[in-house]
Amino acid sequence: MADRDRHREATALAVVHDFIAAWNANDMDRVLALLDENVRYHNMPVAPLDGRRAVAEYLASKGGFDWINWRLLAIAVDGDRVLTERVDDFSIGGVEVSLPIMGTFEIQDGRIRAWRDYFDMDTYRRQLGKPAH
Amino acid sequence: MADRDRHREATALAVVHDFIAAWNANDMDRVLALLDENVRYHNMPVAPLDGRRAVAEYLASKGGFDWINWRLLAIAVDGDRVLTERVDDFSIGGVEVSLPIMGTFEIQDGRIRAWRDYFDMDTYRRQLGKPAH
Repeated sequence: MADRDRHREATALAVVHDFIAAWNANDMDRVLALLDENVRYHNMPVAPLDGRRAVAEYLASKGGFDWINWRLLAIAVDGDRVLTERVDDFSIGGVEVSLPIMGTFEIQDGRIRAWRDYFDMDTYRRQLGKPAH
Repeated sequence: MADRDRHREATALAVVHDFIAAWNANDMDRVLALLDENVRYHNMPVAPLDGRRAVAEYLASKGGFDWINWRLLAIAVDGDRVLTERVDDFSIGGVEVSLPIMGTFEIQDGRIRAWRDYFDMDTYRRQLGKPAH
């Protein structure tokens, strides 16, 4: 692999590690700063959000997390794409959630241009005490 | 990266590419041959299956696929771990399914020792025309 490619992959990995650290610090300003202005954020079971502003509004609508602890089980990079396997533990509105999840991040110019998370929505909703539909 | 590590990652990637090819050939003998005898296969929303025999019985219980076409969107390796982002298209009992999914494969001695797939169960069940619960 050429030095240029190695550097590109190291940068992509660093962005995702920074992003996870920002979540775990519960620092939504840092989280948003790592997103490209035109990011597409797609929680696969629901419709995608387009743009940093849409993500900011979505996060604000959640009313904030009590604490966040994303546990990274595996991470691997191919070019600008970083694939992660995680358990996202967090507390929201006093309710604790532990969610097995995988996510792909596409990096462009040091920011996240696309983010797709794959998980079982019912596993999430059951912990929130909400009905499945 | 040392040559030994590069070789290990190339082998791990090759096993997963072979595995996907075996699925897409709808060749369950080849699929099973690529699993370690003590594989743990975990579709995350449900309980894991332990051992190649348990996976064989599970697949047999499905009654066979009409056709299978796993589309690989992204693949990346870190040591013995291969992370994939896919759309698994297939037909079973005359019903066509298209499932966004990510999976992690842990390779040991040229076979798959662990396989974890992450997807939204309701997205799958709705296409089968089955109720969510």
